[in-house]
Amino acid sequence: MKAVRLHQYLKHPIVEEVADPKITGPLDVIVKIGGAGLCRTDLHIIEGQWKEKSNVSLPYTLGHENAGWVSEVGSAVTNVAVGDTVIVHPLITCGFCRACRAGDEMHCEASAFPGISVDGGFANFLKTSARAVVKLDSSLAPKDIAALADAGLTAYHAVKKAAKSLYPGTVAVVIGAGGLGHIGIQCLRALTTAKIIVVDRSAEALALAKELGADHTVLADGNQRKTVLELTNGFGAEALIDFVGEGGAIADGVAMLRRAGSYYVIGYGGILEVPTIDIISTEINFVGNLVGTYTDLVELMTLTAAGKVRLHTTTYPLEAFNDSLHDLDTGKLQGRGILVPA
Amino acid sequence: MKAVRLHQYLKHPIVEEVADPKITGPLDVIVKIGGAGLCRTDLHIIEGQWKEKSNVSLPYTLGHENAGWVSEVGSAVTNVAVGDTVIVHPLITCGFCRACRAGDEMHCEASAFPGISVDGGFANFLKTSARAVVKLDSSLAPKDIAALADAGLTAYHAVKKAAKSLYPGTVAVVIGAGGLGHIGIQCLRALTTAKIIVVDRSAEALALAKELGADHTVLADGNQRKTVLELTNGFGAEALIDFVGEGGAIADGVAMLRRAGSYYVIGYGGILEVPTIDIISTEINFVGNLVGTYTDLVELMTLTAAGKVRLHTTTYPLEAFNDSLHDLDTGKLQGRGILVPA
Amino acid sequence: MKAVRLHQYLKHPIVEEVADPKITGPLDVIVKIGGAGLCRTDLHIIEGQWKEKSNVSLPYTLGHENAGWVSEVGSAVTNVAVGDTVIVHPLITCGFCRACRAGDEMHCEASAFPGISVDGGFANFLKTSARAVVKLDSSLAPKDIAALADAGLTAYHAVKKAAKSLYPGTVAVVIGAGGLGHIGIQCLRALTTAKIIVVDRSAEALALAKELGADHTVLADGNQRKTVLELTNGFGAEALIDFVGEGGAIADGVAMLRRAGSYYVIGYGGILEVPTIDIISTEINFVGNLVGTYTDLVELMTLTAAGKVRLHTTTYPLEAFNDSLHDLDTGKLQGRGILVPA
Amino acid sequence: MKAVRLHQYLKHPIVEEVADPKITGPLDVIVKIGGAGLCRTDLHIIEGQWKEKSNVSLPYTLGHENAGWVSEVGSAVTNVAVGDTVIVHPLITCGFCRACRAGDEMHCEASAFPGISVDGGFANFLKTSARAVVKLDSSLAPKDIAALADAGLTAYHAVKKAAKSLYPGTVAVVIGAGGLGHIGIQCLRALTTAKIIVVDRSAEALALAKELGADHTVLADGNQRKTVLELTNGFGAEALIDFVGEGGAIADGVAMLRRAGSYYVIGYGGILEVPTIDIISTEINFVGNLVGTYTDLVELMTLTAAGKVRLHTTTYPLEAFNDSLHDLDTGKLQGRGILVPA
Repeated sequence: MKAVRLHQYLKHPIVEEVADPKITGPLDVIVKIGGAGLCRTDLHIIEGQWKEKSNVSLPYTLGHENAGWVSEVGSAVTNVAVGDTVIVHPLITCGFCRACRAGDEMHCEASAFPGISVDGGFANFLKTSARAVVKLDSSLAPKDIAALADAGLTAYHAVKKAAKSLYPGTVAVVIGAGGLGHIGIQCLRALTTAKIIVVDRSAEALALAKELGADHTVLADGNQRKTVLELTNGFGAEALIDFVGEGGAIADGVAMLRRAGSYYVIGYGGILEVPTIDIISTEINFVGNLVGTYTDLVELMTLTAAGKVRLHTTTYPLEAFNDSLHDLDTGKLQGRGILVPA
Repeated sequence: MKAVRLHQYLKHPIVEEVADPKITGPLDVIVKIGGAGLCRTDLHIIEGQWKEKSNVSLPYTLGHENAGWVSEVGSAVTNVAVGDTVIVHPLITCGFCRACRAGDEMHCEASAFPGISVDGGFANFLKTSARAVVKLDSSLAPKDIAALADAGLTAYHAVKKAAKSLYPGTVAVVIGAGGLGHIGIQCLRALTTAKIIVVDRSAEALALAKELGADHTVLADGNQRKTVLELTNGFGAEALIDFVGEGGAIADGVAMLRRAGSYYVIGYGGILEVPTIDIISTEINFVGNLVGTYTDLVELMTLTAAGKVRLHTTTYPLEAFNDSLHDLDTGKLQGRGILVPA
Repeated sequence: MKAVRLHQYLKHPIVEEVADPKITGPLDVIVKIGGAGLCRTDLHIIEGQWKEKSNVSLPYTLGHENAGWVSEVGSAVTNVAVGDTVIVHPLITCGFCRACRAGDEMHCEASAFPGISVDGGFANFLKTSARAVVKLDSSLAPKDIAALADAGLTAYHAVKKAAKSLYPGTVAVVIGAGGLGHIGIQCLRALTTAKIIVVDRSAEALALAKELGADHTVLADGNQRKTVLELTNGFGAEALIDFVGEGGAIADGVAMLRRAGSYYVIGYGGILEVPTIDIISTEINFVGNLVGTYTDLVELMTLTAAGKVRLHTTTYPLEAFNDSLHDLDTGKLQGRGILVPA
Repeated sequence: MKAVRLHQYLKHPIVEEVADPKITGPLDVIVKIGGAGLCRTDLHIIEGQWKEKSNVSLPYTLGHENAGWVSEVGSAVTNVAVGDTVIVHPLITCGFCRACRAGDEMHCEASAFPGISVDGGFANFLKTSARAVVKLDSSLAPKDIAALADAGLTAYHAVKKAAKSLYPGTVAVVIGAGGLGHIGIQCLRALTTAKIIVVDRSAEALALAKELGADHTVLADGNQRKTVLELTNGFGAEALIDFVGEGGAIADGVAMLRRAGSYYVIGYGGILEVPTIDIISTEINFVGNLVGTYTDLVELMTLTAAGKVRLHTTTYPLEAFNDSLHDLDTGKLQGRGILVPA
């Protein structure tokens, strides 16, 4: 089959022929890829930013946002059958550790992360596990929803945590209305009654945010802190959801937070730097977010099937991977890029 | 009456004669002080560290950890009567804002903080509100428990948050076994079944920690991270409770945290500085803690009356305030210092 | 002033002239009534059903769903001013007991319930407390929202509890789409993404339910259990919200509940009767609901101001109280009856 | 091997020779039984009370509280190895349904219950699943802890739910200090700071309760409601944990409950019968409890290894099953009966 393989950090991945994956364990599942989402993390991987955290051996196949159809299953698989349309939870997990037992798969003590630590889905076929596949409503096409497997799941997971404290009358500020942010806004709209304020540097992204349900949009033109405080009567937001996580976004976010509020860290790259006296005198919280659980993904697909979440995408043939990467890197990519194998 | 008054930042407070406080509102309560705790925050106030946050006009009376007996009440007070033994919640709150309604008095939109923003309890009498006084079991003497009003309350509040995720088999690491820390350890012992590991630079403090219920004590001699990771099979702690909040303690704490764990910030002075990629890749949380609620204080007094929490104290006459401050500043003060008016 | 007074159980109340209420305490508030809701509980009171629970002395003024304008305040009131539009939380509470401190005013240890245990709002003026008044957005007219003070609050309170377990993909069954039920459906729509199934004996009530956001409506014609089970693939509902609480509704509700589901008891009159083996073998819960908290009422008014909850009402002049009662009793009353003083 | 088999309802089970269980699936685990607990449910099964709920085909092997050593594993089992000491969670579950994913195994959509719906552990060997075995600290002997697999787990599960609302100063009333109750008391002691009041008809059981940590014991001699109300200043208990579930216990329990309190149903046999007006006017809850989760069992074993929970047992050889049953039925059995195969 064809696969997009990284041979060397800081070099372009290569689209090349490799052997198809094979069933080796009783719970293995092989998925014929219908769509695989391109993510800013793919850029970070190529740059070597995940080298030590993932410990992957090169070359390997990229692609961690995958959807398609079940093509082969191990001897003990009963939850899906060949031909089922599925979206693939990003992690292969053991099912036996405390984290898996608690439904908190992201912290599985023996997990693999296709596309990051083992071969991923920029290919004709992906090998994953029965524990990772979510059977889809037949109304959903893999290429339309693949990016929900990671980008969407991450946004949903963070919003679901925030939603617990977003009762009627509260305010959620979203920083960054891009690939994850535009899904986060839709999830906030679906799960909460909070007033949603979206901050971004792009007027275009803000226009989309408004269309997707933002109550107020604020251009990050240097006055964003002042504007958000005015919109919240000087109090700030109960929830600050940061899809950027670098540059001025972090200091902005802290400044926009209400006493006892929570700052949800999703985007990454920068450094969180806050005097402890500011943390204790306002009793604020910082909440890390890492992808999401299997049941989060099921819930997100329920919202998607109900029309409450929709992705903006641009599709590319698998062979055009490096074009898609170039478009992402240069800001030309509209919405989320989806690779579709022939 | 006699009172300890701060006339100028960076100068010693003066013990001087001032007018007794008077009832002016229907919910006012005047407490004859039986004991008032000395706190490291008093040093910080004198140094000017709270100048802008408190906005207090000098001179004013210090003392924010107060207990005594009700000596006079406003016309609408029904929850206490003259003569009742009481401990005083540190804040005077409105009772009408959302935070007060939710029992989250620390975030009252119209609060005063005696000893910080208005006259405090290093004096014969303190003026507070009916909403702030907790009636005590007559077995408790004000001078023995005064420091629970703030130091104890802060420790209890943070431990109570942490206790929600400390099921049997989990680990709590306490950094700092001093004034707050030694109460925090007792609260952890009372509220949880977690394994308690205490880290401190003082062998003496660790000996006390052990006596109060720590399962393991670790001297902060440079090997503390390694030792804590060994004690937790390399995983780290579900809860990291930091009573220091400055110097190397913060970086140590982050390194000792388990995936999905929470870091409770209580001590202050330093800067929390963590790359966002480390926050998201392990999905950790930072939780601010500011004193505690009125019901927290009631619960803490229940534990104290039951013998589950006891303070280590050294008493001083009110007139000897500057001696007590000197002892605190030079590390000579054993346990918590308590000022007792004549 | 004019007031609707109950002089004897099982007799019609009398509209008569009484003295205006007077401010006697520092936190008293007198409200000029703009609208007061008529409730099935008023019928139950007249029938004597609350005689022992309320211990009220006859004669007294009925009316426990009140809204209007502040006309006079006690000396210590600062949260509202004369002229403010307000809705009145049904209870006068102490603010000092544990329940009040926790925001759980319904369980105040020293409360009064105007219209039930002391004089209520079917009159020109009502005496209540500063703790009970919610200042309203000026866009809301007292006569349009008065019934939210109790009927609406009760529905919101129960739905808010249920909402915690109603993630995307779950099912909520509402039994009874009448005065409370039609508000409950709107609250479910606003707070959750659950599939909403409404069961009622009236096709007209079901038509309204559909319009307000029900996904499915089921006529209670004897096949309702079967139909609900079919609509839930045989599993039943995660939440069963029973606004009827008598007759066959209870047994129906239990039969429609999913394993580990919760049955919210709101309507009353009948007897809950379930073998304990059925409770443990499916691990179901029964959750009592009593009016709601002050902050629940604030949140409900936020939803109302945002257009997410609207009441169906019929207004009557205060003098026509017995006509309104007759219409309620004979099923002629469309929506919720509102008494409006001249 | 030898096994205790039920051939006919209302007849004594027979100890007879049957074939050893065999590994057929990749996640199967065969446990050599070291101890299997006898439970009142075994009596109920023989009486036919579970006939329709379990749908089991006779003859089959009883025994649903099992511990021992792993003797054989399926090809995909990695969490235990042959020779490991294990306690067996009572259910064999799928691991793929929403309930399993949420760690709520009791509501697995495709479970089997050895000893109830398939062959159990009153035998030399038991076939279960990798998902059901908890690896034990080698300090724990199967015959000493087997009954924790179900009786203990059930008590722990209910107490863990109750513990969430048992802050310092609250009261838990335990009805029934027998097989489950005496473990429940120890769990309450370990997990909470609540005042524990135990009600039982047996002075002997109460003496044990006292020794295990009860603060007060109350003989159920007809005055128990009055006594409990006196012990709680007339308020009643925040949590009522009913290990009896039949006879007068239920009405007693409801009468002993504080406003907004919760009644935990564990024992069964009787009928819960409460007027809905009593449920809503005090806002009380009834909480069903069914065995417990896998992680509950892990936590309970942690408490047990730490010496915080210990079982009172009497052992019998497997062949003496009918003697043990007779002793249980006639009240001669001290503590929990444990069958030990040769």
